[in-house]
Amino acid sequence: MNIAVLGTGMVGRAIAGRLDELGHTVVVGTRDPEATRARDEGTASYAAWAAEHPRIGLATFADAAAGAEVVVCATNGAASLDVLALAGAERLAGKVLLDVANPLDFSQGMPPTLFVKDTDSLGEQVQRAFPDARVVKTLNTLNADLMVHPETLPEGSSVFVSGNDADAKGTATALLEELGHTDVIDLGDITTARGTEMMLPVWLRLYGALGSASFNFKIVR
Amino acid sequence: MNIAVLGTGMVGRAIAGRLDELGHTVVVGTRDPEATRARDEGTASYAAWAAEHPRIGLATFADAAAGAEVVVCATNGAASLDVLALAGAERLAGKVLLDVANPLDFSQGMPPTLFVKDTDSLGEQVQRAFPDARVVKTLNTLNADLMVHPETLPEGSSVFVSGNDADAKGTATALLEELGHTDVIDLGDITTARGTEMMLPVWLRLYGALGSASFNFKIVR
Repeated sequence: MNIAVLGTGMVGRAIAGRLDELGHTVVVGTRDPEATRARDEGTASYAAWAAEHPRIGLATFADAAAGAEVVVCATNGAASLDVLALAGAERLAGKVLLDVANPLDFSQGMPPTLFVKDTDSLGEQVQRAFPDARVVKTLNTLNADLMVHPETLPEGSSVFVSGNDADAKGTATALLEELGHTDVIDLGDITTARGTEMMLPVWLRLYGALGSASFNFKIVR
Repeated sequence: MNIAVLGTGMVGRAIAGRLDELGHTVVVGTRDPEATRARDEGTASYAAWAAEHPRIGLATFADAAAGAEVVVCATNGAASLDVLALAGAERLAGKVLLDVANPLDFSQGMPPTLFVKDTDSLGEQVQRAFPDARVVKTLNTLNADLMVHPETLPEGSSVFVSGNDADAKGTATALLEELGHTDVIDLGDITTARGTEMMLPVWLRLYGALGSASFNFKIVR
Protein backbone atom coordinates (compact mmCIF):
# COMPACT_ATOMS: atom_id res chain seq x y z
CA MET A 1 0.00 0.00 0.00
CA ASN A 2 0.94 3.65 -0.28
CA ILE A 3 1.36 4.82 3.28
CA ALA A 4 2.18 8.25 4.67
CA VAL A 5 3.73 8.38 8.12
CA LEU A 6 3.39 11.86 9.61
CA GLY A 7 6.18 12.49 12.10
CA THR A 8 9.93 11.95 12.01
CA GLY A 9 10.44 10.93 15.65
CA MET A 10 11.08 7.53 17.16
CA VAL A 11 7.54 6.27 16.55
CA GLY A 12 7.34 7.59 13.00
CA ARG A 13 10.70 6.12 12.05
CA ALA A 14 9.92 2.75 13.61
CA ILE A 15 6.62 2.44 11.76
CA ALA A 16 7.93 3.83 8.46
CA GLY A 17 11.01 1.62 8.52
CA ARG A 18 9.08 -1.55 9.22
CA LEU A 19 6.32 -0.87 6.69
CA ASP A 20 8.98 -0.23 4.05
CA GLU A 21 10.70 -3.48 4.98
CA LEU A 22 7.37 -5.26 4.58
CA GLY A 23 7.12 -3.98 1.02
CA HIS A 24 4.85 -0.97 1.36
CA THR A 25 5.57 2.32 -0.38
CA VAL A 26 6.24 4.75 2.43
CA VAL A 27 6.56 8.51 2.50
CA VAL A 28 7.37 10.28 5.73
CA GLY A 29 5.66 13.60 6.24
CA THR A 30 7.26 16.53 8.02
CA ARG A 31 6.66 20.26 8.33
CA ASP A 32 9.71 21.30 6.31
CA PRO A 33 11.58 18.50 4.52
CA GLU A 34 14.69 20.61 3.93
CA ALA A 35 14.93 21.53 7.61
CA THR A 36 14.39 17.90 8.60
CA ARG A 37 17.16 16.76 6.27
CA ALA A 38 19.50 19.48 7.51
CA ARG A 39 18.90 19.03 11.25
CA ASP A 40 22.11 17.71 12.81
CA GLU A 41 21.46 15.30 15.68
CA GLY A 42 24.50 13.13 15.03
CA THR A 43 23.65 9.46 14.71
CA ALA A 44 20.05 10.32 15.68
CA SER A 45 19.69 12.65 12.68
CA TYR A 46 16.88 12.04 10.28
CA ALA A 47 19.44 12.19 7.48
CA ALA A 48 21.43 9.34 9.03
CA TRP A 49 18.27 7.26 9.39
CA ALA A 50 17.11 8.13 5.87
CA ALA A 51 20.45 6.99 4.43
CA GLU A 52 19.69 3.53 5.81
CA HIS A 53 16.17 3.61 4.34
CA PRO A 54 16.75 4.80 0.77
CA ARG A 55 13.33 3.75 -0.51
CA ILE A 56 11.45 5.93 2.00
CA GLY A 57 10.48 9.36 0.72
CA LEU A 58 10.31 12.58 2.69
CA ALA A 59 7.72 15.23 1.88
CA THR A 60 5.59 17.91 3.45
CA PHE A 61 2.65 16.65 5.50
CA ALA A 62 0.38 17.67 2.63
CA ASP A 63 2.39 16.00 -0.13
CA ALA A 64 2.86 12.84 1.95
CA ALA A 65 -0.87 12.59 2.64
CA ALA A 66 -1.84 13.38 -0.97
CA GLY A 67 -0.44 10.16 -2.38
CA ALA A 68 -1.35 7.86 0.49
CA GLU A 69 -4.07 5.26 0.92
CA VAL A 70 -3.32 5.01 4.62
CA VAL A 71 -2.05 7.90 6.77
CA VAL A 72 -0.37 7.21 10.11
CA CYS A 73 -0.34 10.15 12.51
CA ALA A 74 2.79 9.49 14.55
CA THR A 75 3.56 12.92 15.95
CA ASN A 76 3.31 13.66 19.64
CA GLY A 77 -0.30 13.93 20.69
CA ALA A 78 -0.21 17.64 21.42
CA ALA A 79 0.74 18.29 17.78
CA SER A 80 -1.64 15.86 16.10
CA LEU A 81 -4.46 18.24 15.21
CA ASP A 82 -2.08 20.91 13.85
CA VAL A 83 -0.14 18.38 11.81
CA LEU A 84 -3.31 16.89 10.36
CA ALA A 85 -4.54 20.39 9.50
CA LEU A 86 -1.30 20.92 7.57
CA ALA A 87 -1.86 17.59 5.84
CA GLY A 88 -5.25 18.98 4.88
CA ALA A 89 -8.76 17.68 5.43
CA GLU A 90 -9.28 17.19 1.69
CA ARG A 91 -6.21 14.96 1.44
CA LEU A 92 -7.36 12.88 4.43
CA ALA A 93 -10.96 12.47 3.26
CA GLY A 94 -11.95 8.87 2.74
CA LYS A 95 -8.59 7.57 3.89
CA VAL A 96 -7.72 5.26 6.73
CA LEU A 97 -6.09 7.48 9.35
CA LEU A 98 -4.23 5.57 12.04
CA ASP A 99 -3.92 7.68 15.17
CA VAL A 100 -1.14 6.14 17.28
CA ALA A 101 -0.46 9.16 19.52
CA ASN A 102 -1.26 9.78 23.17
CA PRO A 103 -2.58 13.03 24.64
CA LEU A 104 0.34 13.45 27.00
CA ASP A 105 0.65 16.72 28.88
CA PHE A 106 4.17 17.34 30.17
CA SER A 107 3.40 20.85 31.46
CA GLN A 108 2.85 19.66 35.04
CA GLY A 109 6.14 17.75 35.19
CA MET A 110 6.70 14.01 35.30
CA PRO A 111 4.98 11.69 34.97
CA PRO A 112 2.87 13.40 32.30
CA THR A 113 -0.89 13.64 32.66
CA LEU A 114 -3.45 13.49 29.84
CA PHE A 115 -4.77 16.69 28.26
CA VAL A 116 -7.99 14.94 27.29
CA LYS A 117 -9.53 11.90 28.98
CA ASP A 118 -12.52 10.00 30.27
CA THR A 119 -15.31 12.00 28.59
CA ASP A 120 -13.38 12.56 25.35
CA SER A 121 -10.17 11.38 23.73
CA LEU A 122 -7.56 12.44 21.22
CA GLY A 123 -8.95 9.84 18.84
CA GLU A 124 -12.36 11.48 19.00
CA GLN A 125 -10.87 14.96 18.62
CA VAL A 126 -9.15 13.82 15.45
CA GLN A 127 -12.31 12.19 14.11
CA ARG A 128 -14.39 15.30 14.87
CA ALA A 129 -11.83 17.63 13.27
CA PHE A 130 -11.58 15.44 10.16
CA PRO A 131 -15.03 13.90 9.82
CA ASP A 132 -14.32 12.48 6.36
CA ALA A 133 -11.22 10.61 7.48
CA ARG A 134 -11.72 7.04 8.68
CA VAL A 135 -9.89 7.27 11.99
CA VAL A 136 -8.63 4.18 13.77
CA LYS A 137 -6.97 4.54 17.14
CA THR A 138 -4.36 1.88 17.63
CA LEU A 139 -0.81 1.05 18.79
CA ASN A 140 -0.81 3.77 21.46
CA THR A 141 -0.42 1.23 24.28
CA LEU A 142 3.11 -0.02 23.65
CA ASN A 143 6.50 1.37 22.83
CA ALA A 144 7.79 2.05 19.33
CA ASP A 145 10.04 -1.02 19.08
CA LEU A 146 7.23 -3.34 20.16
CA MET A 147 4.71 -1.67 17.85
CA VAL A 148 6.66 -3.06 14.92
CA HIS A 149 8.40 -6.05 16.49
CA PRO A 150 6.00 -7.59 19.01
CA GLU A 151 7.67 -10.96 18.44
CA THR A 152 10.63 -9.79 20.54
CA LEU A 153 8.50 -10.35 23.65
CA PRO A 154 8.58 -13.88 25.06
CA GLU A 155 4.93 -14.48 24.15
CA GLY A 156 2.09 -12.97 22.18
CA SER A 157 0.36 -9.89 23.56
CA SER A 158 -2.60 -7.70 22.63
CA VAL A 159 -3.24 -4.51 20.70
CA PHE A 160 -6.50 -2.67 20.20
CA VAL A 161 -8.43 -0.90 17.45
CA SER A 162 -11.09 1.76 18.01
CA GLY A 163 -12.97 3.39 15.18
CA ASN A 164 -16.32 4.09 13.58
CA ASP A 165 -15.57 2.48 10.21
CA ALA A 166 -15.47 -1.32 10.10
CA ASP A 167 -13.56 -1.45 6.80
CA ALA A 168 -10.94 0.95 8.12
CA LYS A 169 -10.52 -1.23 11.21
CA GLY A 170 -10.16 -4.20 8.88
CA THR A 171 -7.36 -2.45 6.99
CA ALA A 172 -5.72 -1.49 10.28
CA THR A 173 -6.00 -5.03 11.60
CA ALA A 174 -4.42 -6.47 8.46
CA LEU A 175 -1.50 -4.04 8.80
CA LEU A 176 -1.13 -4.88 12.51
CA GLU A 177 -1.03 -8.56 11.65
CA GLU A 178 1.66 -7.87 9.06
CA LEU A 179 3.64 -6.21 11.86
CA GLY A 180 3.37 -9.44 13.84
CA HIS A 181 0.46 -8.69 16.16
CA THR A 182 -1.43 -11.90 16.82
CA ASP A 183 -4.23 -10.57 19.06
CA VAL A 184 -5.93 -7.46 17.69
CA ILE A 185 -9.00 -6.62 19.76
CA ASP A 186 -11.73 -4.47 18.20
CA LEU A 187 -13.02 -2.42 21.13
CA GLY A 188 -15.77 -0.69 19.18
CA ASP A 189 -16.29 2.86 17.96
CA ILE A 190 -13.85 5.74 18.30
CA THR A 191 -15.11 6.62 21.80
CA THR A 192 -13.39 3.45 23.03
CA ALA A 193 -10.10 5.27 22.42
CA ARG A 194 -10.81 6.83 25.84
CA GLY A 195 -10.06 3.43 27.27
CA THR A 196 -6.75 2.80 25.55
CA GLU A 197 -5.50 6.38 25.99
CA MET A 198 -6.19 6.07 29.72
CA MET A 199 -3.87 3.06 29.84
CA LEU A 200 -0.92 5.41 29.46
CA PRO A 201 -0.71 6.34 33.14
CA VAL A 202 -0.30 2.70 34.18
CA TRP A 203 2.07 2.14 31.25
CA LEU A 204 4.24 4.95 32.62
CA ARG A 205 4.19 3.48 36.16
CA LEU A 206 5.00 0.03 34.81
CA TYR A 207 7.90 1.52 32.88
CA GLY A 208 9.17 2.94 36.17
CA ALA A 209 8.55 -0.22 38.20
CA LEU A 210 9.95 -2.64 35.64
CA GLY A 211 12.83 -0.40 34.58
CA SER A 212 12.17 -1.19 30.94
CA ALA A 213 9.73 -0.25 28.19
CA SER A 214 9.90 -3.74 26.77
CA PHE A 215 6.53 -4.98 28.00
CA ASN A 216 3.00 -5.09 26.71
CA PHE A 217 -0.52 -5.79 27.89
CA LYS A 218 -1.98 -9.17 27.04
CA ILE A 219 -5.68 -9.69 27.59
CA VAL A 220 -5.86 -13.18 29.05
CA ARG A 221 -9.28 -14.75 28.50
CA MET B 1 -5.18 -13.44 60.03
CA ASN B 2 -8.12 -11.48 61.36
CA ILE B 3 -9.57 -9.73 58.37
CA ALA B 4 -12.45 -7.27 58.10
CA VAL B 5 -14.14 -6.98 54.74
CA LEU B 6 -16.16 -3.76 54.52
CA GLY B 7 -19.03 -4.18 52.09
CA THR B 8 -21.62 -6.89 51.52
CA GLY B 9 -21.82 -6.71 47.73
CA MET B 10 -20.40 -9.05 45.12
CA VAL B 11 -16.80 -8.00 45.70
CA GLY B 12 -17.04 -8.11 49.49
CA ARG B 13 -18.67 -11.52 49.48
CA ALA B 14 -16.18 -12.97 46.99
CA ILE B 15 -13.20 -11.81 49.03
CA ALA B 16 -14.68 -12.69 52.41
CA GLY B 17 -15.76 -16.13 51.27
CA ARG B 18 -12.41 -17.02 49.77
CA LEU B 19 -10.36 -15.70 52.70
CA ASP B 20 -12.54 -17.74 55.07
CA GLU B 21 -12.02 -20.82 52.91
CA LEU B 22 -8.26 -20.21 53.11
CA GLY B 23 -8.43 -20.31 56.90
CA HIS B 24 -8.54 -16.65 57.83
CA THR B 25 -10.92 -15.29 60.45
CA VAL B 26 -13.25 -13.01 58.55
CA VAL B 27 -15.81 -10.48 59.69
CA VAL B 28 -17.88 -8.62 57.15
CA GLY B 29 -18.62 -5.00 57.99
CA THR B 30 -21.87 -3.29 57.11
CA ARG B 31 -23.73 -0.13 58.10
CA ASP B 32 -26.51 -1.89 59.97
CA PRO B 33 -26.07 -5.65 60.51
CA GLU B 34 -29.73 -6.22 61.35
CA ALA B 35 -30.87 -4.48 58.20
CA THR B 36 -28.35 -6.44 56.13
CA ARG B 37 -29.57 -9.73 57.59
CA ALA B 38 -33.21 -8.77 57.03
CA ARG B 39 -32.87 -7.47 53.45
CA ASP B 40 -34.77 -9.85 51.18
CA GLU B 41 -33.10 -10.25 47.79
CA GLY B 42 -34.12 -13.87 47.31
CA THR B 43 -31.18 -16.11 46.47
CA ALA B 44 -28.99 -12.99 46.31
CA SER B 45 -29.78 -12.10 49.93
CA TYR B 46 -26.92 -11.62 52.32
CA ALA B 47 -28.71 -14.01 54.68
CA ALA B 48 -28.68 -16.76 52.05
CA TRP B 49 -24.99 -16.22 51.41
CA ALA B 50 -24.21 -16.06 55.14
CA ALA B 51 -25.96 -19.38 55.69
CA GLU B 52 -23.40 -20.95 53.36
CA HIS B 53 -20.55 -19.24 55.21
CA PRO B 54 -21.31 -19.94 58.85
CA ARG B 55 -17.85 -19.01 60.12
CA ILE B 56 -17.99 -15.48 58.72
CA GLY B 57 -19.19 -12.85 61.17
CA LEU B 58 -21.26 -9.76 60.40
CA ALA B 59 -20.74 -6.54 62.36
CA THR B 60 -20.89 -2.80 62.02
CA PHE B 61 -18.05 -1.23 60.04
CA ALA B 62 -16.55 -0.08 63.35
CA ASP B 63 -16.80 -3.43 65.12
CA ALA B 64 -15.48 -5.30 62.11
CA ALA B 65 -12.48 -2.97 61.83
CA ALA B 66 -11.79 -3.01 65.56
CA GLY B 67 -10.76 -6.66 65.68
CA ALA B 68 -8.96 -6.80 62.32
CA GLU B 69 -5.31 -6.87 61.38
CA VAL B 70 -6.16 -6.27 57.74
CA VAL B 71 -9.15 -4.25 56.53
CA VAL B 72 -10.44 -4.66 52.98
CA CYS B 73 -12.53 -1.76 51.71
CA ALA B 74 -14.82 -3.46 49.20
CA THR B 75 -17.68 -0.99 48.93
CA ASN B 76 -18.35 0.93 45.77
CA GLY B 77 -15.79 3.67 45.32
CA ALA B 78 -18.22 6.53 45.84
CA ALA B 79 -18.96 5.20 49.34
CA SER B 80 -15.40 4.34 50.41
CA LEU B 81 -14.56 7.48 52.37
CA ASP B 82 -17.88 7.49 54.23
CA VAL B 83 -17.64 3.81 55.07
CA LEU B 84 -14.08 4.18 56.32
CA ALA B 85 -15.13 7.16 58.44
CA LEU B 86 -17.79 4.93 60.02
CA ALA B 87 -15.12 2.29 60.61
CA GLY B 88 -13.18 5.05 62.39
CA ALA B 89 -9.70 6.43 61.86
CA GLU B 90 -8.56 5.15 65.26
CA ARG B 91 -9.59 1.60 64.36
CA LEU B 92 -7.76 1.80 61.02
CA ALA B 93 -4.57 3.29 62.42
CA GLY B 94 -1.51 1.13 61.83
CA LYS B 95 -3.50 -1.47 59.93
CA VAL B 96 -3.11 -2.71 56.40
CA LEU B 97 -6.02 -1.23 54.47
CA LEU B 98 -6.65 -2.83 51.10
CA ASP B 99 -8.52 -0.47 48.82
CA VAL B 100 -10.01 -2.56 46.02
CA ALA B 101 -12.64 -0.06 44.84
CA ASN B 102 -12.80 2.10 41.74
CA PRO B 103 -13.93 5.73 41.59
CA LEU B 104 -16.76 5.04 39.18
CA ASP B 105 -19.21 7.84 38.46
CA PHE B 106 -22.50 6.58 37.04
CA SER B 107 -24.17 10.01 37.11
CA GLN B 108 -23.45 10.67 33.41
CA GLY B 109 -24.87 7.34 32.24
CA MET B 110 -23.06 4.32 30.84
CA PRO B 111 -20.26 3.59 30.59
CA PRO B 112 -19.33 5.22 33.91
CA THR B 113 -16.56 7.81 34.09
CA LEU B 114 -14.14 8.32 36.99
CA PHE B 115 -14.86 10.90 39.69
CA VAL B 116 -11.15 11.29 40.39
CA LYS B 117 -8.30 10.60 37.98
CA ASP B 118 -4.95 11.47 36.48
CA THR B 119 -3.78 14.04 39.07
CA ASP B 120 -5.25 12.20 42.07
CA SER B 121 -6.87 8.86 42.80
CA LEU B 122 -9.28 7.20 45.20
CA GLY B 123 -6.32 5.37 46.73
CA GLU B 124 -4.67 8.69 47.53
CA GLN B 125 -7.91 10.16 48.84
CA VAL B 126 -8.20 7.24 51.24
CA GLN B 127 -4.57 7.52 52.33
CA ARG B 128 -4.93 11.30 52.91
CA ALA B 129 -8.17 10.88 54.87
CA PHE B 130 -6.66 8.11 57.03
CA PRO B 131 -2.98 8.99 57.25
CA ASP B 132 -2.28 6.38 59.93
CA ALA B 133 -3.70 3.52 57.89
CA ARG B 134 -1.28 1.66 55.64
CA VAL B 135 -3.22 1.81 52.40
CA VAL B 136 -2.53 -0.59 49.55
CA LYS B 137 -4.44 -0.21 46.31
CA THR B 138 -4.92 -3.56 44.66
CA LEU B 139 -7.33 -5.92 42.88
CA ASN B 140 -9.29 -3.07 41.27
CA THR B 141 -8.38 -4.21 37.76
CA LEU B 142 -10.31 -7.47 37.50
CA ASN B 143 -13.74 -8.80 38.32
CA ALA B 144 -14.74 -10.26 41.67
CA ASP B 145 -14.61 -13.92 40.62
CA LEU B 146 -11.11 -13.53 39.18
CA MET B 147 -9.88 -11.57 42.20
CA VAL B 148 -10.21 -14.72 44.25
CA HIS B 149 -9.95 -17.42 41.58
CA PRO B 150 -7.42 -16.22 39.00
CA GLU B 151 -6.61 -19.85 38.20
CA THR B 152 -9.88 -20.12 36.28
CA LEU B 153 -8.23 -18.19 33.44
CA PRO B 154 -6.30 -20.32 30.93
CA GLU B 155 -2.97 -18.83 32.02
CA GLY B 156 -1.44 -16.64 34.71
CA SER B 157 -2.13 -12.92 34.64
CA SER B 158 -1.04 -9.84 36.59
CA VAL B 159 -2.27 -7.81 39.52
CA PHE B 160 -0.77 -4.66 41.00
CA VAL B 161 -0.02 -3.14 44.39
CA SER B 162 0.39 0.59 45.06
CA GLY B 163 1.20 1.97 48.50
CA ASN B 164 3.59 3.98 50.63
CA ASP B 165 4.37 1.23 53.16
CA ALA B 166 6.61 -1.60 51.99
CA ASP B 167 5.57 -3.96 54.80
CA ALA B 168 1.91 -3.39 54.05
CA LYS B 169 2.56 -4.18 50.39
CA GLY B 170 4.35 -7.32 51.55
CA THR B 171 1.29 -8.39 53.55
CA ALA B 172 -0.94 -7.60 50.60
CA THR B 173 1.27 -9.53 48.21
CA ALA B 174 1.27 -12.59 50.48
CA LEU B 175 -2.53 -12.50 50.61
CA LEU B 176 -2.73 -12.09 46.83
CA GLU B 177 -0.47 -15.09 46.37
CA GLU B 178 -2.71 -17.08 48.72
CA LEU B 179 -5.58 -16.16 46.42
CA GLY B 180 -3.64 -17.66 43.53
CA HIS B 181 -2.06 -14.60 41.95
CA THR B 182 1.29 -15.52 40.48
CA ASP B 183 2.41 -12.13 39.17
CA VAL B 184 2.00 -9.30 41.68
CA ILE B 185 3.66 -6.12 40.39
CA ASP B 186 4.66 -3.44 42.90
CA LEU B 187 4.08 -0.20 40.99
CA GLY B 188 5.42 2.08 43.72
CA ASP B 189 3.79 4.53 46.10
CA ILE B 190 0.09 5.22 46.44
CA THR B 191 0.14 7.81 43.61
CA THR B 192 0.58 4.89 41.21
CA ALA B 193 -3.04 4.00 41.99
CA ARG B 194 -3.84 6.68 39.39
CA GLY B 195 -2.52 4.25 36.83
CA THR B 196 -4.54 1.21 37.84
CA GLU B 197 -7.74 3.16 38.46
CA MET B 198 -7.45 4.62 34.96
CA MET B 199 -7.45 1.07 33.57
CA LEU B 200 -11.15 0.84 34.36
CA PRO B 201 -12.31 2.60 31.20
CA VAL B 202 -10.55 0.08 28.97
CA TRP B 203 -11.70 -2.73 31.25
CA LEU B 204 -15.28 -1.58 30.64
CA ARG B 205 -14.77 -1.43 26.85
CA LEU B 206 -13.14 -4.86 26.87
CA TYR B 207 -16.09 -6.19 28.84
CA GLY B 208 -18.33 -4.86 26.08
CA ALA B 209 -16.18 -6.08 23.20
CA LEU B 210 -15.50 -9.54 24.62
CA GLY B 211 -19.00 -10.02 26.02
CA SER B 212 -17.56 -11.40 29.23
CA ALA B 213 -15.88 -10.16 32.41
CA SER B 214 -13.72 -13.25 32.55
CA PHE B 215 -10.48 -11.67 31.39
CA ASN B 216 -7.49 -10.02 32.97
CA PHE B 217 -4.44 -7.99 32.06
CA LYS B 218 -1.14 -9.81 31.90
CA ILE B 219 2.00 -7.75 31.65
CA VAL B 220 4.10 -9.67 29.14
CA ARG B 221 7.82 -8.90 29.55
